[in-house]
Amino acid sequence: MQKILLASTSTLFGQAYLEYLLEELQSFFADKSTITFVPYARPSGITHDAYTQLVQTAFSKINKSVVGLHSFKDPLEGIDSAEAIFTGGGNTFLLVHQLHQLGLMNPLREKIMAGTPYMGTSAGSNIAGPSMKTTNDMPIVYPPSFDTLGVVNFNLNPHYLDPDTKSKHKGETRETRIREFHIFNSTPVIGLREGNYIMVDGNHKTLKGKGTARIFEAGKKPYESGNIPF
Amino acid sequence: MQKILLASTSTLFGQAYLEYLLEELQSFFADKSTITFVPYARPSGITHDAYTQLVQTAFSKINKSVVGLHSFKDPLEGIDSAEAIFTGGGNTFLLVHQLHQLGLMNPLREKIMAGTPYMGTSAGSNIAGPSMKTTNDMPIVYPPSFDTLGVVNFNLNPHYLDPDTKSKHKGETRETRIREFHIFNSTPVIGLREGNYIMVDGNHKTLKGKGTARIFEAGKKPYESGNIPF
Repeated sequence: MQKILLASTSTLFGQAYLEYLLEELQSFFADKSTITFVPYARPSGITHDAYTQLVQTAFSKINKSVVGLHSFKDPLEGIDSAEAIFTGGGNTFLLVHQLHQLGLMNPLREKIMAGTPYMGTSAGSNIAGPSMKTTNDMPIVYPPSFDTLGVVNFNLNPHYLDPDTKSKHKGETRETRIREFHIFNSTPVIGLREGNYIMVDGNHKTLKGKGTARIFEAGKKPYESGNIPF
Repeated sequence: MQKILLASTSTLFGQAYLEYLLEELQSFFADKSTITFVPYARPSGITHDAYTQLVQTAFSKINKSVVGLHSFKDPLEGIDSAEAIFTGGGNTFLLVHQLHQLGLMNPLREKIMAGTPYMGTSAGSNIAGPSMKTTNDMPIVYPPSFDTLGVVNFNLNPHYLDPDTKSKHKGETRETRIREFHIFNSTPVIGLREGNYIMVDGNHKTLKGKGTARIFEAGKKPYESGNIPF
């Protein structure tokens, strides 16, 4: 039975890294002592080691150990031996590039489908859907494919922002971008606002955090929902 | 001698399409009667025909005809016979995908290098640099490559936005994203704010519009500049 937690962001304004999620993570990872961390998204270009240290600092508050996937000589073995997996945010193109280059996308998918708890924040949540085609990130590297894990049947748009009706800026809104996605793709998209996260427990999916999520389906008007309609 | 105009945006708030640029375009396209329009970026999914019509409406105010590149049976012939070229904004991934699929990237580059006036707005400006790796757009389709025209020696970030110091949103700022780009790439990047545009006349490059542009060079602190330092 799959056990998946997908968060819009790792950090709420004015809080420490993962702070708002720690209580939830205590029960999500209840019977696990070590979390295997996927550091490849490298926010602001932070090193794998420094990123893993940051994650260790947060998880030590709930008495979990953290091991960086980059520290395995063979990362496949790192996936294989993982009790639980967390993929952090950063640049989705870089993350997906690394996972494909290292041949880890399929093994990671199989591991999650076999029931290993998986948690993602931001880019780490993005890759849970069938593709990374609804990321907000900049294409700083060219990945071999935009296909991702597909362990859930929807795409995510993390850090979802509502259109600013007062703005004079003419860059595309998130809603416009996702509408453009749906001209070429049929996967539904969940605009997940900061502070919200999705819990998957087998076939049971729950939206957690405050308020609703913005749901985009091809050919439909976007709407608000307090649960996951797929 | 190359003649290139790269604008951050097509439209300023409260104005008609291309309105703020029309006077400049009158002299930029002075001796040209027909503009060949590249409609492939399809903003909000608008059709090629509807997009070309929008562009025709704007250019008719300065007595220019517009022909959509999509209306040629062989788009290569469309490039070949063009007096002047304009690529409109929309989704950069879609635009680059189409140009590569149709084998138009090299012919378009050669045409511009041979002196045919080229104008771009937003996505159409993005493709003038060596790569599309500093676009803000969503990766709704997977292009065969992120390489673009390289008719200028810098990348652009159109619709550039300064970090909002009052924001509580934790999504990456533009500056963070471009810093991530420079970990893997050395091409300098110009953050071009709305209302600004770059004019290239052979080796002479000018920043036009109000104020300065934000300049990003690998390994340097970003800075403001009223001219193009490359």
